[in-house]
Amino acid sequence: MTEPVVPAARKTYLQGSRPELRVPMREVALTNGDVVVLYDTSGPYTDPDQRTDVRRGLPPLREAWIAERGDTAPYEGRAARPEDDGRRPSPTAFPGGAGGLPQADGEGSLPRRPRRGTGGAVTQRAYARRGEITPEMEFAALREGVAPEAVRDALAAGRAVLPANVNHPEIEPMVIGRDFLVKVNANIGNSAVASSIEDEVEKMTWATRWGADTIMDLSTGRDIHTTREWILRNSPVPVGTVPLYQAVEKVGGDPAELTYEVFRDTVIEQAEQGVDYMTVHAGVLLSYVPLTARRKTGIVSRGGSIMAAWCLAHHEENFLYTHFEELCEIFAAYDVTWSLGDGLRPGSIADANDEAQFAELRTQGELTRIAARFGTQVMNEGPGHVPMHKIKENVDLQQEWCDGAPFYTLGPLTTDIAPGYDHITSAIGAAMIGWHGTAMLCYVTPKEHLGLPDRDDVKAGVIAYKIAAHAADLAKGHPGARAWDDALSEARFDFRWEDQFELSLDPGTARAFHDATLPAAPAKTAHFCSMCGPHFCSMKITRDVRRYAADRGLGDEEALAAGMREKAEEFKASGGRLHLPVSPAGS
Amino acid sequence: MTEPVVPAARKTYLQGSRPELRVPMREVALTNGDVVVLYDTSGPYTDPDQRTDVRRGLPPLREAWIAERGDTAPYEGRAARPEDDGRRPSPTAFPGGAGGLPQADGEGSLPRRPRRGTGGAVTQRAYARRGEITPEMEFAALREGVAPEAVRDALAAGRAVLPANVNHPEIEPMVIGRDFLVKVNANIGNSAVASSIEDEVEKMTWATRWGADTIMDLSTGRDIHTTREWILRNSPVPVGTVPLYQAVEKVGGDPAELTYEVFRDTVIEQAEQGVDYMTVHAGVLLSYVPLTARRKTGIVSRGGSIMAAWCLAHHEENFLYTHFEELCEIFAAYDVTWSLGDGLRPGSIADANDEAQFAELRTQGELTRIAARFGTQVMNEGPGHVPMHKIKENVDLQQEWCDGAPFYTLGPLTTDIAPGYDHITSAIGAAMIGWHGTAMLCYVTPKEHLGLPDRDDVKAGVIAYKIAAHAADLAKGHPGARAWDDALSEARFDFRWEDQFELSLDPGTARAFHDATLPAAPAKTAHFCSMCGPHFCSMKITRDVRRYAADRGLGDEEALAAGMREKAEEFKASGGRLHLPVSPAGS
Repeated sequence: MTEPVVPAARKTYLQGSRPELRVPMREVALTNGDVVVLYDTSGPYTDPDQRTDVRRGLPPLREAWIAERGDTAPYEGRAARPEDDGRRPSPTAFPGGAGGLPQADGEGSLPRRPRRGTGGAVTQRAYARRGEITPEMEFAALREGVAPEAVRDALAAGRAVLPANVNHPEIEPMVIGRDFLVKVNANIGNSAVASSIEDEVEKMTWATRWGADTIMDLSTGRDIHTTREWILRNSPVPVGTVPLYQAVEKVGGDPAELTYEVFRDTVIEQAEQGVDYMTVHAGVLLSYVPLTARRKTGIVSRGGSIMAAWCLAHHEENFLYTHFEELCEIFAAYDVTWSLGDGLRPGSIADANDEAQFAELRTQGELTRIAARFGTQVMNEGPGHVPMHKIKENVDLQQEWCDGAPFYTLGPLTTDIAPGYDHITSAIGAAMIGWHGTAMLCYVTPKEHLGLPDRDDVKAGVIAYKIAAHAADLAKGHPGARAWDDALSEARFDFRWEDQFELSLDPGTARAFHDATLPAAPAKTAHFCSMCGPHFCSMKITRDVRRYAADRGLGDEEALAAGMREKAEEFKASGGRLHLPVSPAGS
Repeated sequence: MTEPVVPAARKTYLQGSRPELRVPMREVALTNGDVVVLYDTSGPYTDPDQRTDVRRGLPPLREAWIAERGDTAPYEGRAARPEDDGRRPSPTAFPGGAGGLPQADGEGSLPRRPRRGTGGAVTQRAYARRGEITPEMEFAALREGVAPEAVRDALAAGRAVLPANVNHPEIEPMVIGRDFLVKVNANIGNSAVASSIEDEVEKMTWATRWGADTIMDLSTGRDIHTTREWILRNSPVPVGTVPLYQAVEKVGGDPAELTYEVFRDTVIEQAEQGVDYMTVHAGVLLSYVPLTARRKTGIVSRGGSIMAAWCLAHHEENFLYTHFEELCEIFAAYDVTWSLGDGLRPGSIADANDEAQFAELRTQGELTRIAARFGTQVMNEGPGHVPMHKIKENVDLQQEWCDGAPFYTLGPLTTDIAPGYDHITSAIGAAMIGWHGTAMLCYVTPKEHLGLPDRDDVKAGVIAYKIAAHAADLAKGHPGARAWDDALSEARFDFRWEDQFELSLDPGTARAFHDATLPAAPAKTAHFCSMCGPHFCSMKITRDVRRYAADRGLGDEEALAAGMREKAEEFKASGGRLHLPVSPAGS
């Protein structure tokens, strides 16, 4: 599995206050001697010095950190049940215990016993409120290039989350909040016909290789439990899920058959496995469902529609809302982060920012405050399909109503007319909403609305969203964000082609595109490019301009400017203006 | 050449006040009986009832309209010269006269004599100022769905342009201005090694098929004159050029050898051929050149750097600026529209909105007012590379300093870090700048900065920009823009898959993506899709919700809403709130 992202780039580590607290970064050594260090989400897979084995999982980096806090203990855990992997038995259902690593081919570790809190909340937020800086906070701060106190204070205030289930010790901690770099989530596994569990793990490593900061496992088919186990044990980034999907599987696919007990049991099952954040559609209240009846596209969220169907079938309030405090206790005991779902998000431009959407957002605010009381970490999910002029209002209201909790949005798509290109329609909205304060962007692939994303679609989606996130970082004036652009632009201006490739989001594609026109190796150092050719290169001419000035003793830029101003003054003094007064012909 | 864009879509025409004034539109007949009529830039090539022959050119639709105005006359024209096609003789140099159609294979029409004005300005602006509504204005107004007076008044005020050289009678007239639909330009022909002239014509028809509203021929290699002639005679959209490129070719590629006379001669040559708008870098003043010396990426505009080099070599003011009024007289005599170049546009995020850029923009304002005096039509070109938070300032200053003239921007790119994906980095900026008032967006392809765009790149660039332009139309609240989104979203919600494909910007890709997961024909009418499968389809569940309500006598939406509200009231009255008061665990 060890394949470096970029052959010429090197994995490097920022050393923290403990030997094992080493924050991975991507170091790009430029041909001019400069070094650029970039944020790296790709995990141990891109470190040639580390051996990884998907059947053994990643090393449990945080294990000692969690244990030494002394507020959690291992326990037997909920026993794995046949229905956890879907109602029909699967030939590949894993033989281990609830938290155990899959033992395919007779290999793999022994089942791991899950942990849970033994007293109060064992969340990063609870520690932050007590003024503690955990190793996780220090790790995330080093990654962001900020002081650990900045991470701690944002977590304590609920302005940021650090998703880190005590049963997912394999993650490299990261922080999500408007004060920090804008993050990107990639959804994987949302396939009822996935060919193999290895494929899903490979999708995860592929997404993180291109820059996904978290992944969500949205599996709905068979082997749900086993697939998730493999993903968790191999994922260096936080993993999110929508437990409702598995809960519905357990009751045969009929939303009306759902019960709070089945849901709670599923949450515990997933919390024991190590899911770091869970989408819960607790804001879809019975009284909001009719607000969607006049919509152009009704309810488009899967979770939202399941809960709406349940509410209607039973004429009862959403059980996720009525049992929210119980769920908070569970989330607090494992440090599962809330991702409060937006089940009534608009599915079309016509439905954006409507009564149904904002009614649910107000309820998200209510739930956010309850979750805060329990010391749990909270994000709020957001739309959807929103035209550009209505985007900012979404962030402003979410920040106001939800006390500044991190906003986590899907896109939004800024038009409905381009199925096949919704990574672009939504990257526009994502960049804007990121600028205005959204903390994490859920990617959209070109297959959105049409089919299941393949490997190329996952890459296209992640890259479009890395562009959106970075454009947002620039617009927010995030310290250090522009250094990357500057390094690449300087390389471009200096015709350091290899440096330009290495610094780009996708070095292989940049290099291949250049090769397509000028394949010869000398072209990689040529002081012109294929767009204009050697005679018309504007960058070359600019350099000539500078050299010309230097040759005439205008040695530095100040002198050049002075010399040119002198010339310009002369020109103006000699009547330098339009010198051919002809009469207007047109009026 | 007759290949419909979409087999199931039909070419239709809106009939104007004259028999030949028929405005082409794309009519999509939906399976539910509705009809959606969309703007169509693809020209006669997509009308199965018209025969087109690239060697004969398109029918000269506007010929009679131009002649009947009685203010132009044919004349001999400037004789074609060997150097017009580049200094080295080319085996494919065309044998006809200046305005003649290429006579390849012994075929083709006789040389056509060019026309020019016999008195005052023969521009659409001059007519508009006199209160006239020309057939061109009526055509453009029908296309936009606005009153002809709206087009006339915007032209008269200089808030819009209608590029329509009297020697390009083949165009289907269109209008560019902030009051109208946001337009897209595609650059083609910028190749010094183009394989054939037919290839360039094919690139043009390909770009307009996907929605390019104008094209620019940026050829710099051999056969410049001949390539342009072929493109003009076959282009249903306005054609723009940068005459400076050909002028430099004529003097052997050395900017210092340029003279005003060579430039003027080139402008006349191209005006006689029928070029509709020309980029002229008249705002790059001698005194502004030093302002670029401290930039991260200096001067990145080809035209800007050529003029800067000329200014420095001669220590004289830009001859385009000093001869601007003479050029206005030429532009007025053919109705060539100004596209005032932004030669000092920023080439990196670091250089955005700097002193050099805005100094030139102020001069563009001065030139815009001079051009107005001559009755010529004017657009202003804009950047470039600009982070999101600095985009709006560009439009605001341009509108203020240039008296509301149409802004025509390249992107802007919102980050420098993604070579290979700059159609996306720039679609983000293009959508935003379009929303804020830019009238036309110059596309950027995935090959930007790396190489020459091929057929796939041209398509990718045009589609990314149609998305940006339409997203901008939605955000501006352009009347009618949302009807397209609504029709597509309704089709999506009704599972009318074929309608969804036909209404999309790229029906073939949308259909292929759907086929990739659910290839069977029945899936095209299935009431679910591949993302969630039959059991979890949120849209299906929403429909079930509606049906459920109907079954219980909640016949219409009002009744449903009422019934649901009733239930919700009951719930609230019975103490419907979080009913499990457990103590907070986390604080």
